[in-house]
Amino acid sequence: MSSVKSASAPIYFGSFLVTPQVFHQTPLSFALVNLKPILPGHVLVSPRRVVPRVSDLTPAETSDLFLTVRRVGRMIEQYYGAASLNIAVQDGVHAGQSVPHVHAHIIPRKPADLDPTDAVYDMLDGEEGDVGKALREAQAGFPSDPERKQSRSRFPAVDNEERKPRTAEEMRIEAEFLRREMEKEDLD
Amino acid sequence: MSSVKSASAPIYFGSFLVTPQVFHQTPLSFALVNLKPILPGHVLVSPRRVVPRVSDLTPAETSDLFLTVRRVGRMIEQYYGAASLNIAVQDGVHAGQSVPHVHAHIIPRKPADLDPTDAVYDMLDGEEGDVGKALREAQAGFPSDPERKQSRSRFPAVDNEERKPRTAEEMRIEAEFLRREMEKEDLD
Repeated sequence: MSSVKSASAPIYFGSFLVTPQVFHQTPLSFALVNLKPILPGHVLVSPRRVVPRVSDLTPAETSDLFLTVRRVGRMIEQYYGAASLNIAVQDGVHAGQSVPHVHAHIIPRKPADLDPTDAVYDMLDGEEGDVGKALREAQAGFPSDPERKQSRSRFPAVDNEERKPRTAEEMRIEAEFLRREMEKEDLD
Repeated sequence: MSSVKSASAPIYFGSFLVTPQVFHQTPLSFALVNLKPILPGHVLVSPRRVVPRVSDLTPAETSDLFLTVRRVGRMIEQYYGAASLNIAVQDGVHAGQSVPHVHAHIIPRKPADLDPTDAVYDMLDGEEGDVGKALREAQAGFPSDPERKQSRSRFPAVDNEERKPRTAEEMRIEAEFLRREMEKEDLD
């Protein structure tokens, strides 16, 4: 009921077509794997409607989004053998948002996976977590937005040089595995 | 309906009695002002039930919590003249959680309020945002938890030396102002 088996209808994250990255859909939300995850299992959950701010969501969209975050987070934490989750919404450009489409980051955490613990935030706001830049690079030809760029963090990202975007095939395969896991989940 | 005028029934955030800091209540959630806000208007929203993880919440509690985050965030952004919001849940100790009671941070953001933009996260995970430590200091005699301390960030907090906890009276007055603002809000 809450999981639609096929992701054949085109799904957009901002202006990006992300259908093969999507592993879970509800009537009002979807979950997708990341091009450049900060840690293994770092995924995003978005409303289907392309709006920039949480305050743009209806109450029904808000409930559906965060019920999906809770359900996806539970699966992700177990599947990746994690012990905690960072859940973060950069709600607006001055909070570090790089794609003007509401999205909650879910990042599974383990003891001592990052040193210090909050390095995850440097990466989230650094180039590592810039889902917009990564997608523009991957899907090419998307114009950069100077205002967005200017207000983004200048904090150096951790081990940025060593990270490469994953291939479409890698993402499709991960999405397929996660889709199967979600189908095993309770719907509550 | 969603706003209870009097905060006379004791409200607990983890093991801390925070009744005078509470400025909004719903049937399942409450919002409180912070002892040491990272930026003006930095507030918390928690479920009434004291549980550590988002996955411990019922679907009804999850919906109510994030509908409250949306409603409180809208008011906070306007009241503090902000342009964006950071919304963050440190869901478990390995994600930086310092009080084992689910809480969403809402931090209003303005252009160039912090440099770099993501300094907010250093502060959130540093001593500035350690709501547990601040409350223990303020309410005295609460035993520290070595496991929690150990897994917390060692990243230096910005201008930590210059920040002091606010007095109970300062917090009570801010909560009173915010309570009146919330009463003007639409309930959707």
